[in-house]
Amino acid sequence: MAMNRETTQSIPVVRRTGKIALEEAVGSPLFAAHQNYPPRPVIKDLDGLPFSTEFLADVESRLDDVELRLKSMDQSGVQYAILSLTSPGIEGVSDTETAIYFARETNNAIYNKYVRPYPDRFGFFACVAMHDPGEAAKELQRAVSQLGAKGALINGFTNLDDRDDKLRYLDAPECEPFWKMLHQLQVPLYIHPRLPPIHQQVLYSQYPNLVSASYGFGVECAGHALRIMCSGILDKYPVTIILGHCAEALPFIIHRANQRMKIGTPGGNGAHKHSLMYYFQNHFYATLAGVRRYSTMKNTIEELGESRVMFSVDYPYESNEDAADWFDGLELNESTRMAIAAGNATRLFGLPAMAD
Amino acid sequence: MAMNRETTQSIPVVRRTGKIALEEAVGSPLFAAHQNYPPRPVIKDLDGLPFSTEFLADVESRLDDVELRLKSMDQSGVQYAILSLTSPGIEGVSDTETAIYFARETNNAIYNKYVRPYPDRFGFFACVAMHDPGEAAKELQRAVSQLGAKGALINGFTNLDDRDDKLRYLDAPECEPFWKMLHQLQVPLYIHPRLPPIHQQVLYSQYPNLVSASYGFGVECAGHALRIMCSGILDKYPVTIILGHCAEALPFIIHRANQRMKIGTPGGNGAHKHSLMYYFQNHFYATLAGVRRYSTMKNTIEELGESRVMFSVDYPYESNEDAADWFDGLELNESTRMAIAAGNATRLFGLPAMAD
Amino acid sequence: MAMNRETTQSIPVVRRTGKIALEEAVGSPLFAAHQNYPPRPVIKDLDGLPFSTEFLADVESRLDDVELRLKSMDQSGVQYAILSLTSPGIEGVSDTETAIYFARETNNAIYNKYVRPYPDRFGFFACVAMHDPGEAAKELQRAVSQLGAKGALINGFTNLDDRDDKLRYLDAPECEPFWKMLHQLQVPLYIHPRLPPIHQQVLYSQYPNLVSASYGFGVECAGHALRIMCSGILDKYPVTIILGHCAEALPFIIHRANQRMKIGTPGGNGAHKHSLMYYFQNHFYATLAGVRRYSTMKNTIEELGESRVMFSVDYPYESNEDAADWFDGLELNESTRMAIAAGNATRLFGLPAMAD
Amino acid sequence: MAMNRETTQSIPVVRRTGKIALEEAVGSPLFAAHQNYPPRPVIKDLDGLPFSTEFLADVESRLDDVELRLKSMDQSGVQYAILSLTSPGIEGVSDTETAIYFARETNNAIYNKYVRPYPDRFGFFACVAMHDPGEAAKELQRAVSQLGAKGALINGFTNLDDRDDKLRYLDAPECEPFWKMLHQLQVPLYIHPRLPPIHQQVLYSQYPNLVSASYGFGVECAGHALRIMCSGILDKYPVTIILGHCAEALPFIIHRANQRMKIGTPGGNGAHKHSLMYYFQNHFYATLAGVRRYSTMKNTIEELGESRVMFSVDYPYESNEDAADWFDGLELNESTRMAIAAGNATRLFGLPAMAD
Repeated sequence: MAMNRETTQSIPVVRRTGKIALEEAVGSPLFAAHQNYPPRPVIKDLDGLPFSTEFLADVESRLDDVELRLKSMDQSGVQYAILSLTSPGIEGVSDTETAIYFARETNNAIYNKYVRPYPDRFGFFACVAMHDPGEAAKELQRAVSQLGAKGALINGFTNLDDRDDKLRYLDAPECEPFWKMLHQLQVPLYIHPRLPPIHQQVLYSQYPNLVSASYGFGVECAGHALRIMCSGILDKYPVTIILGHCAEALPFIIHRANQRMKIGTPGGNGAHKHSLMYYFQNHFYATLAGVRRYSTMKNTIEELGESRVMFSVDYPYESNEDAADWFDGLELNESTRMAIAAGNATRLFGLPAMAD
Repeated sequence: MAMNRETTQSIPVVRRTGKIALEEAVGSPLFAAHQNYPPRPVIKDLDGLPFSTEFLADVESRLDDVELRLKSMDQSGVQYAILSLTSPGIEGVSDTETAIYFARETNNAIYNKYVRPYPDRFGFFACVAMHDPGEAAKELQRAVSQLGAKGALINGFTNLDDRDDKLRYLDAPECEPFWKMLHQLQVPLYIHPRLPPIHQQVLYSQYPNLVSASYGFGVECAGHALRIMCSGILDKYPVTIILGHCAEALPFIIHRANQRMKIGTPGGNGAHKHSLMYYFQNHFYATLAGVRRYSTMKNTIEELGESRVMFSVDYPYESNEDAADWFDGLELNESTRMAIAAGNATRLFGLPAMAD
Repeated sequence: MAMNRETTQSIPVVRRTGKIALEEAVGSPLFAAHQNYPPRPVIKDLDGLPFSTEFLADVESRLDDVELRLKSMDQSGVQYAILSLTSPGIEGVSDTETAIYFARETNNAIYNKYVRPYPDRFGFFACVAMHDPGEAAKELQRAVSQLGAKGALINGFTNLDDRDDKLRYLDAPECEPFWKMLHQLQVPLYIHPRLPPIHQQVLYSQYPNLVSASYGFGVECAGHALRIMCSGILDKYPVTIILGHCAEALPFIIHRANQRMKIGTPGGNGAHKHSLMYYFQNHFYATLAGVRRYSTMKNTIEELGESRVMFSVDYPYESNEDAADWFDGLELNESTRMAIAAGNATRLFGLPAMAD
Repeated sequence: MAMNRETTQSIPVVRRTGKIALEEAVGSPLFAAHQNYPPRPVIKDLDGLPFSTEFLADVESRLDDVELRLKSMDQSGVQYAILSLTSPGIEGVSDTETAIYFARETNNAIYNKYVRPYPDRFGFFACVAMHDPGEAAKELQRAVSQLGAKGALINGFTNLDDRDDKLRYLDAPECEPFWKMLHQLQVPLYIHPRLPPIHQQVLYSQYPNLVSASYGFGVECAGHALRIMCSGILDKYPVTIILGHCAEALPFIIHRANQRMKIGTPGGNGAHKHSLMYYFQNHFYATLAGVRRYSTMKNTIEELGESRVMFSVDYPYESNEDAADWFDGLELNESTRMAIAAGNATRLFGLPAMAD
């Protein structure tokens, strides 16, 4: 008999129902009708797409299939999913008028296809066109008040041209009307990763799959979150921000980042009043989307507390079943399990309790 | 009396001696004599230096002061430090001949100033000119065999021009002679962060201090390590690589990166035979340099094992006293404490046991 | 310089205010007036008291000194303490009439000395005479409704004779009226350890200090809690039980205990409907009283969730300052810190928020 | 769909080979031939056996069946088991001459049945008669030098009469010759739990299954270990002691026990020179026998270090398959996994590496 030879056997896991998932992607008929618009990852200009064609075909077959989605949710014990337009979404549309139009119609389409017919299974985060933050604020208000949107989801920077040469992060002063509306409506903002701007992709050149791997790393998304903290906008509008993938490694690095800011150039930190750690712990929630590693989840809980960590899947880029098998199999106490599986989301979004 | 009002009080910590530190920077008379060469962080072209002038003045006063360094080590219970040329070092010199000359003379200078007079307090990692990997291999061999160098330290990518437009990562095929020599000599390679190339700094624009904060993040350094894993060079030359700052967040993200590679474009991963996780767990060590957070350290131990994590400071960019106060105050069992404080380094570098 | 030689240095800790403590002992004028009654630890019959005379003298000087207590609370950032009669208290009085009388008058005395004059600093757990559970129920009702008691605290088994030959655990059928009242009043029960019955002390013979050490172990108290779980009384009256000392090692062993019950003799488990784990996770809270070890606290959080763990000291048997130095120095996120320091207790006892 | 409804599904676990197990029980023909001798748990005198007849029948069918054992080990990836006589074994024999005779012949029988024919699958811990420690030392020497025993295993206290009224712990001065021999031979001692003495079982009266549950608690065994620490015998003979069940909750409580000793009666601690924590961290190893809970295992690693924790099963009282499914499914890094699965035992017992 040999040391450490591996075989695969099956062990039982107890499937739990009632989970809530928050980073769940859908397509948009608007994009489907306009071939020259994203979703299209800009990385392909450099080295080709970081996903296999088989993977993309599977994703595409699932992105807009309601029945398949519900079946997969049922098999995985996911009771309720908050949907959002797949990355890069509106943020990848460089023309302002088009973006405004796409955002509004996409929100209507998601509402009509998912939320209205299945109110106990689906909610959604509105997409908005940050090309014109005043319009974004209006659309957010409409989506929340008329369509019941649970907040907004933004896929990283917003393209203001076709080549990533001009782009906008959410800390830009122009964005203030949108922050003001978030605060007024008391809804959270989910910041979702997107591929980094093309001139930043040199770090991954020759290994396009690393973009995807480091996409998980969330360098772009974590940097975006740090910019927002530094800008001071959270001092003015203390809104709640959600990050996926266990907050994109911020739990691991935020303490050191915090220390480093103290030795920085005067004025080089932005106009914020508190420490990075303060904003992180008081304004951010993390989801487990895409993470199936207990030590990563635990580090996240240790830095945010178990009341700020929420289950999620990232369907159809990840499998509901894989996420549920992993999460349901974790050795958690009931209180922590329930908080992460559903309780924290129920509280944050004012959802009805999902028990019998 | 108010909730949560803060005051500062003093509590005792038991100072322990015998610690070994591995990411400890020194200057070089060669650089000092040539004002037009780095160390100079390229970021200043964009937004200015990410460090305050007070901080830099303190660093500079300590970088080359042997007495001050020894005093600080004594006060902190650091028995032995493995020194290296401060970042970006040789890698920031764009002229090949100059780089080769600087590397050789810097190694001689460090040996003569620190290692020869204080053999029980100082060792060093050689610097090499990766502009010409054959010359780098030769200099490594000389430094190890003649000066007793403990391995090599490389500050990220190597500049092949003055503007970061042409740069070399260690996975480049040209670097093979250097890997071959590392393997032949059985010494480890420390990959130290440097500021990212200038066109990648847009993520931090307007907040230069974030570069430093995210420097701790180690995006550039982690990406470099992932490139090496993907390249397959570790299959051919199974050498040991050390990363600082708790392995630059790789412990937090490596499992998800591992998953994502499986759905990548065929051929987009590089020529490696094993999983990213495999290389990480079998070829990498992490140091605590710059980290003073138990949950970050614990995540690192959970992904690498306590036999692959080693104390370090990052003096003079960090304070020996701060690092020691934190580490000596941790509630660790003796076996784990000794392994991380000194035992793992003693084993990895073949050092004498540092007890009475 | 030697490896691992120890010296003591001081490091700063940020003192936080607003903490709530729940296992804080006071004396009783009734006991003081009756020399032949406990508090007197039965262990002395065997090997002598497990505490040094210096320690006991210090405890006694503090037990009834309000000014000293408040000063120590102020220095430690403890805003509010829920007091209780020191162990073994009423449970060590073997005569029923005396016990009933002592309980009532002790509750009055604690109320008048601490709670009435300092309502924003002190609450109390009522003591009751479980020798007559009907009377215990009545006294609990009176103490809660008239004196504002926050629940009851019972020091382990109740002596029904002077020699521990006849004793009563809380799972005894006779105790039902008391459980019914706890449930009716919706107040929690704190079960505090006491020295084990004398014929169980053989395990510690010749080492009386081990009783104290293993008292921390809480063998007697954990066994008591397991008896209650097994009895099924929590199915009928689903009350909340608090245990000190991180729940007396139950977090560490409950999962294995749970497994073992399944292979037990039919009928040998008692009449309970759920698993031991179920009762532990749904009916129990733990306090940190007497614990200053992060790994122990963390194990407790992992098995109960951070919403069921509460700071406490065990003053004057432990030092407020020691407990606060340790707790305030822990590297916790704010959400978890606040929950454990005060938030969970505030919620459980319906206290006013203790902020400015 | 309901919240939290449970169903069972199967997920794959990767089975790993090469594990070593150390708390694996076998029977003895000597006991089988003498019906009036244990193994017989003394608890039955009080409330009946704490195990169901089905469970006991299964255990008995497996205890002496070599083929079944090997098959189960193969299916579970357990390469090597160190066997020992099932509890209470020799320690439950009250007659000294019988005990001496049984010990010697049992060691011979185990050697002949398991170790000689299957040297790459089985080793064993010798049983000894602590009724006469000089004879115990001799038998240990014989078993180690002639039969290749890996050390000794003792099931708690030794009965010196039939009613537990006279019993011997290993800290008794009479035991010194045995400690001396352990030290001379440089072999470890495994202290295995047994049912507590009958007059200590009152804590579990009416719930005999709790004895088994708290058997897992290991109150008796942990107390025994603490007695040994206090006695000072480890100062004279610094031997290695192994405890099962994650060291019987000592990791959770040792720090508080350590604190409490400092406030104890002078002389009430025994003659030891160091702290309880010191002995625990420097002289003890823990096995996972009977534990399938990650938080418990992690607490143990945090207090002993990953180099002092070893996989084990407790077959046939526990299932090899259950233990392996749990352990092989843990999200551990390779270095930690290998150390616990086999590496630490390989080093401690000087076994050959068990790889291909």
